[in-house]
Amino acid sequence: MELRARVNMMRCSHRLLCSLFLAAALFGVAAAATRRHDWDISYQFTSPDCVRKLAVTINGHTPGPTIRAVQGDTIVVNVKNSLLTENVAIHWHGIRQIGTPWADGTEGVTQCPILPGDTFAYTFVVDRPGTYMYHAHYGMQRSAGLNGMIVVEVAPGAAGDGEREPFRYDGEHTVLLNDWWHRSTYEQAAGLASVPMVWVGEPQSLLINGRGRFVNCSSSPATAASCNVTHPDCAPAVFAVVPGKTYRFRIASVTSLSALNFEIEGHEMTVVEADGHYVKPFVVKNLNIYSGETYSVLITADQDPNRNYWLASNVVSRKPATPTGTAVLAYYGGRRNSPRARPPTPPPAGPAWNDTAYRVRQSLATVAHPAHAVPPPPTSDRTILLLNTQNKIGGQIKWALNNVSFTLPHTPYLVAMKRGLLGAFDQRPPPETYAGAAAFDVYAVQGNPNATTSDAPYRLRFGSVVDVVLQNANMLAANSSETHPWHLHGHDFWVLGHGAGRFDPAVHPAAAYNLRDPIMKNTVAVHPFGWTAIRFRADNPGVWAFHCHIEAHFFMGMGIVFEEGVDRVGDLPPEIMGCGKTRGGH
Amino acid sequence: MELRARVNMMRCSHRLLCSLFLAAALFGVAAAATRRHDWDISYQFTSPDCVRKLAVTINGHTPGPTIRAVQGDTIVVNVKNSLLTENVAIHWHGIRQIGTPWADGTEGVTQCPILPGDTFAYTFVVDRPGTYMYHAHYGMQRSAGLNGMIVVEVAPGAAGDGEREPFRYDGEHTVLLNDWWHRSTYEQAAGLASVPMVWVGEPQSLLINGRGRFVNCSSSPATAASCNVTHPDCAPAVFAVVPGKTYRFRIASVTSLSALNFEIEGHEMTVVEADGHYVKPFVVKNLNIYSGETYSVLITADQDPNRNYWLASNVVSRKPATPTGTAVLAYYGGRRNSPRARPPTPPPAGPAWNDTAYRVRQSLATVAHPAHAVPPPPTSDRTILLLNTQNKIGGQIKWALNNVSFTLPHTPYLVAMKRGLLGAFDQRPPPETYAGAAAFDVYAVQGNPNATTSDAPYRLRFGSVVDVVLQNANMLAANSSETHPWHLHGHDFWVLGHGAGRFDPAVHPAAAYNLRDPIMKNTVAVHPFGWTAIRFRADNPGVWAFHCHIEAHFFMGMGIVFEEGVDRVGDLPPEIMGCGKTRGGH
Repeated sequence: MELRARVNMMRCSHRLLCSLFLAAALFGVAAAATRRHDWDISYQFTSPDCVRKLAVTINGHTPGPTIRAVQGDTIVVNVKNSLLTENVAIHWHGIRQIGTPWADGTEGVTQCPILPGDTFAYTFVVDRPGTYMYHAHYGMQRSAGLNGMIVVEVAPGAAGDGEREPFRYDGEHTVLLNDWWHRSTYEQAAGLASVPMVWVGEPQSLLINGRGRFVNCSSSPATAASCNVTHPDCAPAVFAVVPGKTYRFRIASVTSLSALNFEIEGHEMTVVEADGHYVKPFVVKNLNIYSGETYSVLITADQDPNRNYWLASNVVSRKPATPTGTAVLAYYGGRRNSPRARPPTPPPAGPAWNDTAYRVRQSLATVAHPAHAVPPPPTSDRTILLLNTQNKIGGQIKWALNNVSFTLPHTPYLVAMKRGLLGAFDQRPPPETYAGAAAFDVYAVQGNPNATTSDAPYRLRFGSVVDVVLQNANMLAANSSETHPWHLHGHDFWVLGHGAGRFDPAVHPAAAYNLRDPIMKNTVAVHPFGWTAIRFRADNPGVWAFHCHIEAHFFMGMGIVFEEGVDRVGDLPPEIMGCGKTRGGH
Repeated sequence: MELRARVNMMRCSHRLLCSLFLAAALFGVAAAATRRHDWDISYQFTSPDCVRKLAVTINGHTPGPTIRAVQGDTIVVNVKNSLLTENVAIHWHGIRQIGTPWADGTEGVTQCPILPGDTFAYTFVVDRPGTYMYHAHYGMQRSAGLNGMIVVEVAPGAAGDGEREPFRYDGEHTVLLNDWWHRSTYEQAAGLASVPMVWVGEPQSLLINGRGRFVNCSSSPATAASCNVTHPDCAPAVFAVVPGKTYRFRIASVTSLSALNFEIEGHEMTVVEADGHYVKPFVVKNLNIYSGETYSVLITADQDPNRNYWLASNVVSRKPATPTGTAVLAYYGGRRNSPRARPPTPPPAGPAWNDTAYRVRQSLATVAHPAHAVPPPPTSDRTILLLNTQNKIGGQIKWALNNVSFTLPHTPYLVAMKRGLLGAFDQRPPPETYAGAAAFDVYAVQGNPNATTSDAPYRLRFGSVVDVVLQNANMLAANSSETHPWHLHGHDFWVLGHGAGRFDPAVHPAAAYNLRDPIMKNTVAVHPFGWTAIRFRADNPGVWAFHCHIEAHFFMGMGIVFEEGVDRVGDLPPEIMGCGKTRGGH
């Protein structure tokens, strides 16, 4: 069914009609609605953690509104850029943009940025139910506050198609996790590009639904004048529950830097969804969640109803210098409880930040729900092995894949490739593996000399099956390796395996790949000193970024780009052009 | 000669050839050179007043390099935008852009902004000797550090044409005056647009050639961590002189807000040039200079050579909350003097900040040099009377002219008019005068209700003579009126007169206009509660902004736009397009 619709869509010449046709073909005309949103992007003074800071907002707010839709709906977001001198682009994270690759919102890849004063209409179909998010995908703008959640419900009429969800709940909450700095994203970015690098430091606060509390509010000289602990922006988020009921918490992390551990004090969580795919349920006390990931968990309000409980997010994987982010689980119906009362206990502190094994176990436990598993192709047509290293290039600290640090071109690939614009990007294929892959010591400090910067894309045969193995390694400093959450645009991939140390292509595929019930995701963690293998089918015509979702890491070159079937992409909307080699009359 | 060249140029079809032809026609082929500059615009951390702040820099520096050229030269500045998410546009303040109206650098008027990654070549002829400046002309970007000076020398072979300068000197210095805030321009702009308005406050420092000293450097909690009094960026500027010699000081003010008084301790200054025009010399102890103005003064190093002296800039016209900006006049050759020594006296404090009469006297004293006066046309074809008021529109505080607060369109006028793009701007003519002009009390708080915002331009008959009378008035608060330095792009104008109180068209032209030897300028002050009358010939095909040079005031609507002879403008370079209605394939 899906394939047929896609083929029809390829022959379609009018974009919006194609989208509608696709939606109609997949879900029946009656169910598909068009949901329109008008967003005005502007700077506003906000106080998410009680400290006043200029943020990039949607209709005056950060986070922006949650987009709610039903599977098969067409979403139209009219984005008006009311920033004064700054452009914008918004990525719909987890939405595959089948048939609408120009709506992916990735500046330099799928579109030119939206200029101040311009309005750009993002039109796309949400073809799968699940929990997703959106955020700016331009420079380090995501960190400035432009983010929010997308919730796609199962179509009411779809139950007969086997799309009924494999769990039940009485109520739902959305939880958007973030980290927050008092310094501007401009300062962060300029510091990262400086020689020597000026690091902004760990975040001042962790936010839950855009709310946190800077702990040194009045005692820090730097913020004394701009801090107001009674500001309504920083009142903690409150999640109401009724005793005995079961709730779905849809959780997304849009952090710039932090890997987080999320916990609801005293309440076990059953993990049921990851990145829009149903998980074989497993129970955790707390949930590790990396930037770009989403999960749904179920909890039952089965604790003492005469008090409230903390929601807590804690930094893991990096040595924490940021206090716990908190919100309140408020019991309604406890006779002696006020839903606004502060929980009487200290917030949960989370697991040991450096317990990598603990986090790897969660990664390995996350497999597909038996009734919803989509088996991967048994073999791949091509394997790309990507060594993730920290390098110095021209004095700057960079991240590189196989010694190539990625740079974005100024003409979007999608336009450059479709139109055959020469000189828009490096045409030489980037490396499929790294030198010395057979004996590389991922635990040692490596010189990684002769690293270069490049915007060369990986071009994939349309319809082919591609494996990518992400190999983590030691950083520039000894005994250091971080977690990198890699996010693929335009696809979900099967998570074939995670391992510690150096990946061995002669051993690990046979010994460690899960080809039976791997979960599909759009974002997956590569653990310290470890490797992660994924598989996907290159069947979505377009150009798609694949990168570490840590904002600073992508900014420093930790990403690549895939092209597949760009010749099958329909006529490009002129609105995505206007920069680089598509400037003015060119 | 000039007119003939211009007429030839109008028939010219190739832009660069036209410019070269114009230069050749005016000054002889031998004298005209092409001077190329490659500028990379980026954010850098700078410490102009010892406090670290992110600035927009040119090749890493703020201010940018002084452009030096000879009359008739062609200047080519290749501006590469290396900002991450922010566009840029640069105005060549005082250069009339005859035949190159698309190179004026005024975002929304003459070009679309330059996108990150793009390079835009500004090519123009400097047709007159004199002292000019350049600065960003986009949002409030000028305040972020993107500014510098332009010095155009008299062509060596031009002496016979009467262009020899009417004064002599032994050496020359350039002095660029500025004011400086620790808060970013984004915060300033967002605050101005807020309801209620959040005012950034008076500048923290005054800079001379980009150097100042924040007086509360280590004692201010907000800046303690980012302040370094030994940072080389904030070492005071030193101006070397040899005893007995005479020096030309070329002085420009690029302040965002402040009207300044400039003094060289113990040295009388002879004013000889204003905005590129020779002044009938007059001697001052100190010089009032408004944002957008340039002056040349001569001083003789005739004081005790065994000590140094202060250069000082002080705020006037607004109650000062910013300490004196200082630099050092260093005597070389005094036997007991070190050129690096601090002057032994306190820096000059300048005149009383609210002595308007003192400053008006300087305005009236500034008339054309007898040997270089260009007499104005005796009458005008049209008079536009512009009442400058502060208004509230939709809760926002705005500035308005005749109750119309100016907004910039997102399609540049030059492109929209040349191509006849409908809907790009308001076609209805804006008002030529204001309601109740015959009896308006400029000293009273006025309601000024029903003010509107508009981007409607004033369209002028090509070749006509236009008078504009700028009428100042009381602001929203009682007993308050500020000085507004109005700057006209694309022209010099004759300064016909200044007066106190309400301008009376039946009385003042006859009684107070100077038609004999008015100075020509591109920027002129409108004094508190007073009026200023100017005259110009609408003979430069293009679209030209005319606005208060206070960055916040233009941002809040204090400006208008003139169109003249746009049908005579040659083919527009495609590089100026790409925004608004010229976006993408449109």
